[in-house]
Amino acid sequence: MNENTIAILGGTGDQGLGLALRFAKVGRPIAIGSRKLERAVEAARKVREAVPGAEVEGLLNEEATTRAPIVILSIPFEHFVSTLKTIRERLVEGQVVVSMGVPLATALGDAAVRTLGVWQGSCAELVAAFVPKGVRVVSAFQNVSAHRLQRLEEEVPCDVVVSGPKGPRERVMELCGLIPGLRAVDGGPLANARIVESVTALLIGLNVRYKVPEGLGIRFTGLPEA
Amino acid sequence: MNENTIAILGGTGDQGLGLALRFAKVGRPIAIGSRKLERAVEAARKVREAVPGAEVEGLLNEEATTRAPIVILSIPFEHFVSTLKTIRERLVEGQVVVSMGVPLATALGDAAVRTLGVWQGSCAELVAAFVPKGVRVVSAFQNVSAHRLQRLEEEVPCDVVVSGPKGPRERVMELCGLIPGLRAVDGGPLANARIVESVTALLIGLNVRYKVPEGLGIRFTGLPEA
Repeated sequence: MNENTIAILGGTGDQGLGLALRFAKVGRPIAIGSRKLERAVEAARKVREAVPGAEVEGLLNEEATTRAPIVILSIPFEHFVSTLKTIRERLVEGQVVVSMGVPLATALGDAAVRTLGVWQGSCAELVAAFVPKGVRVVSAFQNVSAHRLQRLEEEVPCDVVVSGPKGPRERVMELCGLIPGLRAVDGGPLANARIVESVTALLIGLNVRYKVPEGLGIRFTGLPEA
Repeated sequence: MNENTIAILGGTGDQGLGLALRFAKVGRPIAIGSRKLERAVEAARKVREAVPGAEVEGLLNEEATTRAPIVILSIPFEHFVSTLKTIRERLVEGQVVVSMGVPLATALGDAAVRTLGVWQGSCAELVAAFVPKGVRVVSAFQNVSAHRLQRLEEEVPCDVVVSGPKGPRERVMELCGLIPGLRAVDGGPLANARIVESVTALLIGLNVRYKVPEGLGIRFTGLPEA
């Protein structure tokens, strides 16, 4: 396991691929995971094409999981539990799992402007209920526009609320600093993911009402300068 | 009923008083409501002191309700139902009730960084369930800092997500335009208040973690210029 590598499960999707591109651009090795090997390999090829010299590998989710101290879950909500069941045996103490998931009602065929209730409180807390002891879960990146991530020449004007246990939380906040425009905000305990995840549904509705296909972001006003 | 008057129930509290000051400053007549007449009268005096020439009256909630086409509820969540029971007989068809309420867990003695579940989905939807037919409910102003509202010389850097039925929603969006710095954002249907209300709890946590007693706000990035 290379300490600098970042694993992105669902790195074949728009948002995961966007993160892979951004992290590769600043020289971080990337392990893209997918349920289908050929899709992961294809996504890795895309990253190398956009970022010459990028150190990126396409793997099955369970393999990608073993490659990095930080494993980002960028998968549709309906695939969270099945993916967690696939990877939980591979996770080891000390690893950090980042939940980007949002329980959008699309998981049941309803609209993306609504969310489902999750027994554990949020997608991130559901993840926390599924990982082995010693693996810690952080919530982040839900509200970052996939389109804007993929436009490598532009900044991504968005605050990222990072919640979860102290230590892992700060490590994920540092990752945010690798992407120009993003600002990490200390979101406190993991349970605050309930709020942050729901904001995604609000943003999706605003994107539609204001016709902003590139996607809106959020900023907090009045924060002290870093 | 003067068409320009704005009624603010709970206008004796920090946030309601802040709105009263701001609206009075741009010449709108204000009816401040309270459960206790002497508190309403005292709040009205404060407004006149800060805004010379302000047209402002302190009244019981049920009286203030009859004075304005728009009635803003700026009261603690635990007093919503009792207040609605007091005023519902006085509300008439065509009036717009604005819910600023947030179901903070403080209502039950727990912390302000957590919210309670509300059967109807949100405080605003609870209000909608209590008002007579023909009275319409809009959700707004939850995330606007009381401190910043009261500093009349400064702008209030915050977006206000306004949700509710078309027509009344636009009327409340216009009110936002009266306060320098505030920007109204079309928040779609009233049910989106579920998200907006929960953001207040997140902001309260951020105020504490980042030590910003004046209160943070939010902005959406990427919105087209008005």
